[in-house]
Amino acid sequence: MLIDERIPLGRRTQEIKRSALQDMLMEASRPEVLSFALGLPAAELFPITTYAQASAQVLSTDQRALQYGPPFQPLKSHIVRLMAMRGVECKAEQVFLTTGAQQGISLLTRLLLNPGNQVMVEEMTYTGFQQVIEPYQPEILTVPTNIKTGMEVGAVQELLSGRTRPAFIYTVTDGHNPLAVSMSKGKRAQLVRLAKQYHIPIIEDDPYGFLYYQNTPIPPLRAFDDQWVLYVGSFSKILAPALRVGWIIAPEEMITNLSNIKEASDIDTSTLSQRTISAYIDAGHLKTHLPMLRHEYRVRRDAMLCALDRHFPSTSRWQEPTSGVFIWVELPDEIDTVKVLKVALETERIAFIPGKAFCVKNDCQALHCMRLNFSNSSVESIKEGIARLARVLKGMLK
Amino acid sequence: MLIDERIPLGRRTQEIKRSALQDMLMEASRPEVLSFALGLPAAELFPITTYAQASAQVLSTDQRALQYGPPFQPLKSHIVRLMAMRGVECKAEQVFLTTGAQQGISLLTRLLLNPGNQVMVEEMTYTGFQQVIEPYQPEILTVPTNIKTGMEVGAVQELLSGRTRPAFIYTVTDGHNPLAVSMSKGKRAQLVRLAKQYHIPIIEDDPYGFLYYQNTPIPPLRAFDDQWVLYVGSFSKILAPALRVGWIIAPEEMITNLSNIKEASDIDTSTLSQRTISAYIDAGHLKTHLPMLRHEYRVRRDAMLCALDRHFPSTSRWQEPTSGVFIWVELPDEIDTVKVLKVALETERIAFIPGKAFCVKNDCQALHCMRLNFSNSSVESIKEGIARLARVLKGMLK
Repeated sequence: MLIDERIPLGRRTQEIKRSALQDMLMEASRPEVLSFALGLPAAELFPITTYAQASAQVLSTDQRALQYGPPFQPLKSHIVRLMAMRGVECKAEQVFLTTGAQQGISLLTRLLLNPGNQVMVEEMTYTGFQQVIEPYQPEILTVPTNIKTGMEVGAVQELLSGRTRPAFIYTVTDGHNPLAVSMSKGKRAQLVRLAKQYHIPIIEDDPYGFLYYQNTPIPPLRAFDDQWVLYVGSFSKILAPALRVGWIIAPEEMITNLSNIKEASDIDTSTLSQRTISAYIDAGHLKTHLPMLRHEYRVRRDAMLCALDRHFPSTSRWQEPTSGVFIWVELPDEIDTVKVLKVALETERIAFIPGKAFCVKNDCQALHCMRLNFSNSSVESIKEGIARLARVLKGMLK
Repeated sequence: MLIDERIPLGRRTQEIKRSALQDMLMEASRPEVLSFALGLPAAELFPITTYAQASAQVLSTDQRALQYGPPFQPLKSHIVRLMAMRGVECKAEQVFLTTGAQQGISLLTRLLLNPGNQVMVEEMTYTGFQQVIEPYQPEILTVPTNIKTGMEVGAVQELLSGRTRPAFIYTVTDGHNPLAVSMSKGKRAQLVRLAKQYHIPIIEDDPYGFLYYQNTPIPPLRAFDDQWVLYVGSFSKILAPALRVGWIIAPEEMITNLSNIKEASDIDTSTLSQRTISAYIDAGHLKTHLPMLRHEYRVRRDAMLCALDRHFPSTSRWQEPTSGVFIWVELPDEIDTVKVLKVALETERIAFIPGKAFCVKNDCQALHCMRLNFSNSSVESIKEGIARLARVLKGMLK
């Protein structure tokens, strides 16, 4: 075979960047690396025994659990009740099941985005969303994020009051990825008001919303409006990622369109997963699992905050996250966290994700920042790892 | 809410037709309907006990079975051995795991197709492929299919010897959907020669290739060339659809591109499914399951052929399929099978898919044809259902 006798690939393909998460996965998955890189849930907290019971029960009672099938209604009803726990009123007819939240975002983008359209997004955002929109090459409008109160809704207003009409606004309202901030209540109300006023749909990506660490979490945007907010949820972080089940809450008239796109993508969402999750919730396990997860993750969050306080340079800054699995750390401006990562991997075998990876545009304001995950390490590893990472920083600050 | 205050949908969305399969699913899923419509595997033949054992074993040994994860190497090795059973030599590095075959086709299309490109396909083809390409709006070049020997490769040659340069050729080589034909060996060799000569990749969609009913099945196109044939396989029809695991065999240099697109679509293929299928094959179950499936489906095929012979009008024609789960019936030209379906549902509660549903272009040559599935009905139901369907036809032919 000659070297040039290769299948020519579509142009769009080159437009999908290999995500930082994928590259980090390579490094971070080496067993000797202590990783704060990926947003993985804690495998040791998966309810594997009770899930196995639910799975055995489903497989012993109905062969159709292994067949293709329409969305499982009892699971939709469970999701309606889950959403009510977040302060959201919705109907089973507004629930659309997906192969995880990533597919939810991907399907909604395909549903809403035309060639030549704009999308509005925060300056730093989830890399998986950036991968979703890249093939469409939309014009990207960015707005800043306040590290304490979330997306700068004033900037959204300013853009919309001009001629700007994006196909949608994308945001992670709670436990923002990567900034770890949860949007203030006032801003939520204001953002939804703008969406309604200007007829701009919002994709609210909420993988972490059920992982909150205060007593009275603020309801998601979807609680403020049922027409312009398209909510994306997932069982990946609250149950387990390998089930590959997430959901969209959307106006009922969009469900048929979503199901057409979904069918072309992967036919349906695993019937077995749908039924097993439903049986697991039926048995009352999620009710106890969720508070346990919140407790364990809060303990890990606090251990990381404490270790940062103790070891990190006094010139670095972070907030206490009220939801989610990340802490966002701003180091002194002269620090380049891509270099820090390189040294940290080489000398201390510690991984994290540099701020640069999350920047939507090239003029990145996060070169001195890092995203640290606390859900996927034990308290001991967190204490040890943050101390070692601090050692790297001190060496580089000298 | 005013009626016009609705989220405007992307233009591409309207281009995805609701598939005939989806509409039929609605009708055919009514319990009183005896359905030959969908290409469903037989739920009562799913190896649910041994699969449940494999699942229990996996869930009891490793919490990481519920985590995100890289492709499971042992499953890739099993697929290499499966492909060898079909006469295909490949390496684990050429195996890419997908959320079923539909995702395989969808990812490959996205990888290969640029706006304004052409694709080459048979005049009648799998509706799920038509759904995949619709948003890209490619120019579609069609070639006829010989009902006994498969795709008219002479017509492919004629098009390619001109200026025609499609981004790829799509075909179902074995147990064609909907035509039930398997391509002759000579045509396979000739088609692959053309692909190599003109540098046109072939997407070989092979969900039914392992369901063959003769002693020495012809190897798939991928056995003839490892560079220009992109093979798509699936566990849906040989194990169970709800596992949502399929695979692509592609040149190694394409795997990274595929994994980037896949990550943007749904992150990864269920780790739990991957490990459970692997454990199921490890335990030696697939070895006995496959011959059992072939035997049972052959019995059903023969029952349907026999019932057609006995009851259908003598002016109708069909072939004995050597693979797959369908029989394609051509009725007298004056019969419109869309009307037949309507009457069959109303008067006899029988479902099938009319030929029209599979036509790529508007000048459909299959208005008098029907696709009948034999895998998802018992022998008794097949005998009964074909007799009832024949009654409908006789009423309409009067």
